[in-house]
Amino acid sequence: MRALKERILQDGKCFEGGILKVDNFINHQMDPILMKSMAVEFVRRFANTKINKVMTIEASGIAPAIMVGYLLELPVVFVKKKVPVTMENMLKTQVYSFTKDRMYDVCVSKDFLCKDDKVLFIDDFLANGNAAKGIIDLVNQAGAELVGMGFLIEKAFQEGGEWLRNEGIHVESLAIIESLDNCQIKFKE
Amino acid sequence: MRALKERILQDGKCFEGGILKVDNFINHQMDPILMKSMAVEFVRRFANTKINKVMTIEASGIAPAIMVGYLLELPVVFVKKKVPVTMENMLKTQVYSFTKDRMYDVCVSKDFLCKDDKVLFIDDFLANGNAAKGIIDLVNQAGAELVGMGFLIEKAFQEGGEWLRNEGIHVESLAIIESLDNCQIKFKE
Repeated sequence: MRALKERILQDGKCFEGGILKVDNFINHQMDPILMKSMAVEFVRRFANTKINKVMTIEASGIAPAIMVGYLLELPVVFVKKKVPVTMENMLKTQVYSFTKDRMYDVCVSKDFLCKDDKVLFIDDFLANGNAAKGIIDLVNQAGAELVGMGFLIEKAFQEGGEWLRNEGIHVESLAIIESLDNCQIKFKE
Repeated sequence: MRALKERILQDGKCFEGGILKVDNFINHQMDPILMKSMAVEFVRRFANTKINKVMTIEASGIAPAIMVGYLLELPVVFVKKKVPVTMENMLKTQVYSFTKDRMYDVCVSKDFLCKDDKVLFIDDFLANGNAAKGIIDLVNQAGAELVGMGFLIEKAFQEGGEWLRNEGIHVESLAIIESLDNCQIKFKE
């Protein structure tokens, strides 16, 4: 998606170790107009997909997911990274955090992820795919169907995208980064 | 706001101790169409206010805030509840968590909250006002101006709303709950 790639080149900040910061328009400060444009692009790419629910994971996934849900007029469920004291009747799984080098629990209420759901998962980044694997586990536990996964930015030099596509999952990423070597942003054509 | 009050009566769940769960359409599963309608109502209520930035705090504030930012074509910044390892140059404050009975750090980058900003803060709940007080502290540290605070649901039987209004802050809440006694939802007229 051209507008996103241009914005990454303009405002993204690259650091040693394959780190790309997009705090200026996605992860901390958000550009709602761009969020809507990206959501339109997801609608286009998943146009032939039957979806009845959008899922995401807090916190940076919420903005793009709510825009997709708004356009499709579908409910949006965000998976929680902390197990709330007031939540009963939930599905839980563990996700590996690369930055913290430890596992943490994520959860979703059984009321909002059910057997007949056809789920489109939306998130900001696809790198190692650890959060995505957690989502797959939750969807499987619920007996629901994962009809696709959409990411704003994919780091193709990490293994998540290949792993998900090998599993037969319909993955769409709006900007795919081939490499960040020498702090240069190189997109996959 | 009538549509929100009706939805609270329809789908809100009331528990002992003044707890209202709106997990069905705000806090876990979200209704994006209602989110947009609530954002329109905020736009109306803050129509005479000069705003250049919408602020919120993760995670449940992000959806209503991004909708307000979308309608007003303004950037939206979400305050983080964990201090990211990669963030430098930030403003920090402490917020008291009622449910956990402890203080926790929240932070915002100095790049996204600056001296000339006129900030509209949007969040899902106003109860004791602890998160709101943290936001005021961050805005003051930045030397920015807080032009208003909008909440989806205010619990008038807790002290946050009165405290903020006594400070002279323009507070707008779309549904104000007078009491949850005996697990009955009673709105303030």
